[in-house]
Amino acid sequence: MSAPDSNLIEHTTHSEQLMQGRFLQVLRDTVRLPDGGSDTREYVVHPGAVMIVPLLDDGRLVLERQYRHPMGKVMIEFPAGKLDAGEDTFTCARRELLEETGYAAREWARAGVIHPVISYSTEFIEIWFARGLTLGERSLDQGEFLEVFSATVEELAEWCKDGRVTDAKTLTALLWLQNVQNGTWALQWRQDARQGSAG
Amino acid sequence: MSAPDSNLIEHTTHSEQLMQGRFLQVLRDTVRLPDGGSDTREYVVHPGAVMIVPLLDDGRLVLERQYRHPMGKVMIEFPAGKLDAGEDTFTCARRELLEETGYAAREWARAGVIHPVISYSTEFIEIWFARGLTLGERSLDQGEFLEVFSATVEELAEWCKDGRVTDAKTLTALLWLQNVQNGTWALQWRQDARQGSAG
Repeated sequence: MSAPDSNLIEHTTHSEQLMQGRFLQVLRDTVRLPDGGSDTREYVVHPGAVMIVPLLDDGRLVLERQYRHPMGKVMIEFPAGKLDAGEDTFTCARRELLEETGYAAREWARAGVIHPVISYSTEFIEIWFARGLTLGERSLDQGEFLEVFSATVEELAEWCKDGRVTDAKTLTALLWLQNVQNGTWALQWRQDARQGSAG
Repeated sequence: MSAPDSNLIEHTTHSEQLMQGRFLQVLRDTVRLPDGGSDTREYVVHPGAVMIVPLLDDGRLVLERQYRHPMGKVMIEFPAGKLDAGEDTFTCARRELLEETGYAAREWARAGVIHPVISYSTEFIEIWFARGLTLGERSLDQGEFLEVFSATVEELAEWCKDGRVTDAKTLTALLWLQNVQNGTWALQWRQDARQGSAG
């Protein structure tokens, strides 16, 4: 009797680092294929990231415009950022929202997780919704330039339809927004203990 | 007077290849930042890809289960594949659908484009819907192992909600499916000339 998915699963027999850049690390693994053959898999090792979907009290969304070098253009996207070493995703979400937009949130809800590029990166992106926003002061990373603006869900949907928004994580955020809005998908909101005690 | 988005746009001053693997190529560009400073950007150079959303006559979707090494598990996703050198996206969509699933389609509609990883890859994925499916014989690439199955839109939505589906392109396909289904987003269908003349 064969194990479940033994017709699909690969087993790593060797792993080597191909590259360690300032930002990107690339591995090449040798794998044993389901039919006993051998092949190689090259992929980026990524610490993981979060995306924040910030809801203003009037129902508008907080978005960003940021120049993305591999795209060669300014992209519309939700705030997002990589996990620092040892950082949990909630702490990261709170930190990135504040740093990039200046907003703090009274309530948070973890929506789900995205794998943006399953064929050549280990990256995951956890989606966090934030509401009860109050504006403080943002503090961008060195070398980070972005504009913060707001839009309605309907405006965002129009831009996703007509191709002005093509960023996969932001498209997935719209999927969540539409399904939460029509009552099909539910969010479990929780208070931010730090914000709660301050307010 | 400053040019539009001069507060955001970076300009490449130098480009070097960091790595050329069997599959992945990585570049490191030096850029001049909006404030006149300098920084580096590392990214994967990708030929682009297509995803096919195949609709069976009974309304069910054709999906795949495939082991994805960077994820270390079997993922549920729509058929997809990289462009061959010089290949247009429609030819690629037709080829990948046939190779991976064995299906040919009488009608096709280009839905939109996704950028899965705007911070460190040039990859785009064009989304093609396919209908009027007839089953022939599939011919997987060397070293490619996957299972083909079908599901309803409602089943796929449930899996996207509960985390069984986390692949970004497949989540974006559900966004399109739901908005097409409720009449908000429209698809422009066209006959496949080769299929049309044969049938």
